[in-house]
Amino acid sequence: MLSKSQSKLITSLHQKKYRIKHQLFIVEGIKAVNEFLNSDFNLHSLFCTSSFSHQLPEDKIEIVSDTELKKISSLKNPNEVLALFQISEIKPIDTSKFIVILDSINDPGNLGTIIRLCDWFGITQLVCSKDTVDCFNPKVVQATMGSLSRIKIQYIDVLDFLTKTDLPIYTAVMDGENVYQKTLDKEAVLVMGNEANGISDDVLKLITQKISIPRFGNLQQTESLNVATATAILLSEFKR
Amino acid sequence: MLSKSQSKLITSLHQKKYRIKHQLFIVEGIKAVNEFLNSDFNLHSLFCTSSFSHQLPEDKIEIVSDTELKKISSLKNPNEVLALFQISEIKPIDTSKFIVILDSINDPGNLGTIIRLCDWFGITQLVCSKDTVDCFNPKVVQATMGSLSRIKIQYIDVLDFLTKTDLPIYTAVMDGENVYQKTLDKEAVLVMGNEANGISDDVLKLITQKISIPRFGNLQQTESLNVATATAILLSEFKR
Repeated sequence: MLSKSQSKLITSLHQKKYRIKHQLFIVEGIKAVNEFLNSDFNLHSLFCTSSFSHQLPEDKIEIVSDTELKKISSLKNPNEVLALFQISEIKPIDTSKFIVILDSINDPGNLGTIIRLCDWFGITQLVCSKDTVDCFNPKVVQATMGSLSRIKIQYIDVLDFLTKTDLPIYTAVMDGENVYQKTLDKEAVLVMGNEANGISDDVLKLITQKISIPRFGNLQQTESLNVATATAILLSEFKR
Repeated sequence: MLSKSQSKLITSLHQKKYRIKHQLFIVEGIKAVNEFLNSDFNLHSLFCTSSFSHQLPEDKIEIVSDTELKKISSLKNPNEVLALFQISEIKPIDTSKFIVILDSINDPGNLGTIIRLCDWFGITQLVCSKDTVDCFNPKVVQATMGSLSRIKIQYIDVLDFLTKTDLPIYTAVMDGENVYQKTLDKEAVLVMGNEANGISDDVLKLITQKISIPRFGNLQQTESLNVATATAILLSEFKR
């Protein structure tokens, strides 16, 4: 049975300030929890409605009822298991590799999709501006489908990083060079901007390579691409 | 002021069966409504909280209060204007062009994103299986950001269509040919499948070209790509 203090701790972790305070975050569902168990993240505690197949130290497992799971879950339909993992410490950025930087991404679904894309394309480092949505937000964790367990994510002062880096800095803008015709660097930084406003003016000044995804539809009317689909197309171009 | 019957009609259109019955659907927000006003869709009625800039026959405009708008809106934060447009009749599929077919797509956000992608890549025809989420679902309309006004969408018997077509039929599967190395047809059908289960076995039998998006990440663990981001990458490859 869940104690009041456990229940209070878990539900508090739906909020960023308590995740920071306790250095813990929630992972839900058998598949995702198993992926985190097989990752570098350390398990704090695990709550499940039935016996959980994985081999675990018994003192970390707690059997709960469906009603109890529903109470602590952030999902509409909780999926047997909810685990708390420790937020791991930040390692320095390895600038010998391809780096994706997100500048003020607000939507948890977009961040989750971009983390999945990084995982697919073998990009292990994702750097976020401090005002980008928290990657340990339960909605983000859910949207990454376990990919979050394999990607190192850091929240830093993006302007400071970009000012100091020697890597070519790419972003997509409307009037950039056609990405299909340009030779792209293998070691580079790709900056993707806010859903509504794109990248900030200060960051734009530091861009060395402006590229664009050509538009084939009605040029007058078509909306810009969603940031996650634009990231998909650009990462595919860098990696192909 | 909104009459009871108007209010009842509008809220009923949040459900598919009433959209079919009345052959009407909801569009919200100034930008999207303006795009539909400039499209082939016919306006049925328009409700706004302030004077709407566009030139319109007066008998179709109704000024409503914020409270009234909130009552009929499907949005958390309604945006000044809500319009009803007529569902237009289905035209035959033009098989001389590139066609995207969706087989059992469930998520309104995914369908909306794919409609936006079609618009971006100049693909004017989207064909959906009958069990794909309704494109006039308010969440889909919202997610398309106006692109729905420019794309012809049909719900048909996909198996029947694929059996009869002479076009090459593509889909993405794990063990398909590397899409980056294959010469892709300009006139073709691309089938994208259900979020959880992919395309159905019956459809799979009719595929003539199996392709894949190479995976660069950890081959053992990485999840498959989301259907909308996979569609983004594949359409980019067909069009580049």
